[in-house]
Amino acid sequence: MFGQRSKHIRYMTIADETDPFQTECGKTLREVVLAYETYGRLNEDMSNAILITHAFSGDSHVGTHPDEPELRGWWGDFVGPGRVFDTSKFFVICSNVLGGCMGSTGPTSINPDTGKPYNLSFPIITITDMVNAQKRLLDRLGVSSLVAVTGGSMGGMQALQWGVSYPDYVKAVIPIATTTRLSPQGIAFNEVARRAIVNDPKWNNGNYPLDDPPVKGLALARMIAHITYLSNESMHSKFGRERVNSDKYLYKFCTEFEVESYLDYQGHKFTKRFDANTFLYMTKAIDYFDLEKAYGSLYNAFKSVRAKFLIISFETDWLYPIYQGKEMVSALRQAEKEVTYAQIPSTLGHDAFLLEYKNMKGVISPFLEQFLE
Amino acid sequence: MFGQRSKHIRYMTIADETDPFQTECGKTLREVVLAYETYGRLNEDMSNAILITHAFSGDSHVGTHPDEPELRGWWGDFVGPGRVFDTSKFFVICSNVLGGCMGSTGPTSINPDTGKPYNLSFPIITITDMVNAQKRLLDRLGVSSLVAVTGGSMGGMQALQWGVSYPDYVKAVIPIATTTRLSPQGIAFNEVARRAIVNDPKWNNGNYPLDDPPVKGLALARMIAHITYLSNESMHSKFGRERVNSDKYLYKFCTEFEVESYLDYQGHKFTKRFDANTFLYMTKAIDYFDLEKAYGSLYNAFKSVRAKFLIISFETDWLYPIYQGKEMVSALRQAEKEVTYAQIPSTLGHDAFLLEYKNMKGVISPFLEQFLE
Repeated sequence: MFGQRSKHIRYMTIADETDPFQTECGKTLREVVLAYETYGRLNEDMSNAILITHAFSGDSHVGTHPDEPELRGWWGDFVGPGRVFDTSKFFVICSNVLGGCMGSTGPTSINPDTGKPYNLSFPIITITDMVNAQKRLLDRLGVSSLVAVTGGSMGGMQALQWGVSYPDYVKAVIPIATTTRLSPQGIAFNEVARRAIVNDPKWNNGNYPLDDPPVKGLALARMIAHITYLSNESMHSKFGRERVNSDKYLYKFCTEFEVESYLDYQGHKFTKRFDANTFLYMTKAIDYFDLEKAYGSLYNAFKSVRAKFLIISFETDWLYPIYQGKEMVSALRQAEKEVTYAQIPSTLGHDAFLLEYKNMKGVISPFLEQFLE
Repeated sequence: MFGQRSKHIRYMTIADETDPFQTECGKTLREVVLAYETYGRLNEDMSNAILITHAFSGDSHVGTHPDEPELRGWWGDFVGPGRVFDTSKFFVICSNVLGGCMGSTGPTSINPDTGKPYNLSFPIITITDMVNAQKRLLDRLGVSSLVAVTGGSMGGMQALQWGVSYPDYVKAVIPIATTTRLSPQGIAFNEVARRAIVNDPKWNNGNYPLDDPPVKGLALARMIAHITYLSNESMHSKFGRERVNSDKYLYKFCTEFEVESYLDYQGHKFTKRFDANTFLYMTKAIDYFDLEKAYGSLYNAFKSVRAKFLIISFETDWLYPIYQGKEMVSALRQAEKEVTYAQIPSTLGHDAFLLEYKNMKGVISPFLEQFLE
């Protein structure tokens, strides 16, 4: 497990010998634990739960717990009393995904059959597998329905899959900065990032000690990914062509431009909190997500959903471009579903889903109001 | 030297003990050779020469020589009798840049001081250095003026620098798919590509045998770069989300999507024809090019130019976006220079400058006509 952990993290066994977990790829996991955190209280008729699903490198720590102000949640502004996901009204649940490295069973876990870490023997996990594992968690928590499922990026894919897989369980789906299927350009970026990891000799075909991982490859993978999270506009305003140390060129190969320094920092920071094999599994899950392929068409995928949708895209997000948000809206309307679309004019690129709190609150709060009794 | 070479390649010593080459970074090269090819004939008053400057991984082989039809030039459609750079009228010259690995002196060359390859002891080369070396070549060839200098991408940077450095020598400048300074996003992509090379243990701080280079790192660097050469649109139409072998997902880590297979192929092909250290030098030259920084402002850079400019940008080129073309046009107009701007509605991304022959001919041919006597 990576990084500093909240003391509010809980662990739920959602599969065991008597009730193993069947993955979409056909393999069986006979022991699955999900790490999760909750915020607020489940009401008596169990009708106020919201599930938040995390992105690629996220975890269960979506909000900041009042007694741990130093451990800020990845959506710390979004979750809390009076915030858009108002914990004085809603019971908010967030779990680390199946296949993750933040407490849930994944490639870094011990394989009960061998007593050794799974590494690459862990089954390929899909977005559907993540959602099915979350459903087991909610069943065990006694949550009988969800007011909403929401998340950004890979979290948005899970939200979409929730609406499709469990139509009677979910009142609202809020997919943010996401798509029903990644573009070939997105697959290409995932592939070169994976290649950065597997090129590192320390990766050793996935069999590295957790205390001596392929940090160079993992850092590079994160640097590549990070470029796609920012927009050209935000890079201009954050870094421009400024240099770190000198106005004069140094005429040598070193970290010289601010943007290089920033990426270097982000890459190294990431290796302290994330696992290299898990990077491979998460990106593969993202690449594979394809509602059109899975259901024959987006219309077919959406025709049985019963949730109301609020779809949010950001104008400078070139990894999950706005045309993908509009495609979802069209398909949902074609299937005669209730859908609201918000195209937010942010300059922050894909990262906007973590940062544009005010603009997102402005559309999410009124949307959620209809579900408050 | 890399790849199959034309028998028409020639070599010119442009610096020696008696006339060494001073680089912009302050180091001196006491032996410089440029590899070059020519097409057509220089007329008697030496007034029909066009210099074509190549991009990042290009070379002197811009056109296809009639007796070598199998060795297609990188602008094979553009150079020849009746083509846009019409060799029945113009004398076309193209040289491998200083610092390159296609016959000109660069990091793979032998350092006369040590008898060993320069590798990273080669000085950092700038676009200005490349242009100054080309000027020496033209002087030695007896070319006393240029009808035009043209090139795409890094070649466009050289064309711009030509217009600025040698205002009395150049009648026309045609910078294509280029900029007066790379965006921070572009620098970021260059940096992660360089990192892919230096992360490869075989790179060995630049000291690898040329017959056992860091192919994994170099291939990955090219894969990263290649993504930036294509547009999201062209990736959709070339690959979509198609798989190589099976309509079903394979549920393992392998080359599975068409786009992955394409990048893998491009990456490996590149390692047969290009040098890893040279990749570092060329990307650094691109990162450093900054007319605004060098001259205080674009207005200052352009105020002494005398050439007429034709600037060409492509609508889906996100590496050298059209706003950069427009910035050049504005600055040239502010400096009261004659400038024509063509924004070509191609879907092919940055690679369009190698592919959009008909659209480019449509603007370049009428522009060049004014210089024919």
